[in-house]
Amino acid sequence: LPFFSTVIMPSDLERAMETMITVFHRYAGNEGNTSTLSRKELKLLMETELASFMKSQRDPAAVEKIMKDLDGNGDGEVDFEEFVALVVGLSVACEQFYKMHMQKTGGFKKQ
Amino acid sequence: LPFFSTVIMPSDLERAMETMITVFHRYAGNEGNTSTLSRKELKLLMETELASFMKSQRDPAAVEKIMKDLDGNGDGEVDFEEFVALVVGLSVACEQFYKMHMQKTGGFKKQ
Repeated sequence: LPFFSTVIMPSDLERAMETMITVFHRYAGNEGNTSTLSRKELKLLMETELASFMKSQRDPAAVEKIMKDLDGNGDGEVDFEEFVALVVGLSVACEQFYKMHMQKTGGFKKQ
Repeated sequence: LPFFSTVIMPSDLERAMETMITVFHRYAGNEGNTSTLSRKELKLLMETELASFMKSQRDPAAVEKIMKDLDGNGDGEVDFEEFVALVVGLSVACEQFYKMHMQKTGGFKKQ
């Protein structure tokens, strides 16, 4: 990614941010508006990039509901800012799980 | 990360989410409450993991102001959910820059 490559040695966190951008655009560019995800593009992204999360979803209309939740301005498309809300929601849920796991295994030692 | 390792082959996006969690806890665990960032921990995280962003900040009180912005519940600490808001803000800003760059270089070809 151009501007990240001007960064001397991107940190893990900078690479993670870059990944969110490049993954979003990998799918957003497939059809129609290349800066937003259509329903079809969102579905493909979730099934490919969030496979384990999707497998945990028993509701066949999960993508439909998530699309509706994310599409804040109701234009039938999901832009990057709306997409990042999904990533945040999943990360916050995972972090809760991570904390429980660390507490159970006494993982929270001083660095 | 335990639960991500139960994921067969984590995707780029799953690894990025995992990174946000592990980087946060790498610094949150240094002192005091191991689930939140103190001001000192946030400063160290930003100077190490967001070095290029911090270098672009001319305001010496940048960390102070960011800490105040992030610390939604005013407890003087930043939890993971408050921290992710910083990552989102930076990612959204970078994505704008990325789009401009792609449009200038005609990068938005069909996959």
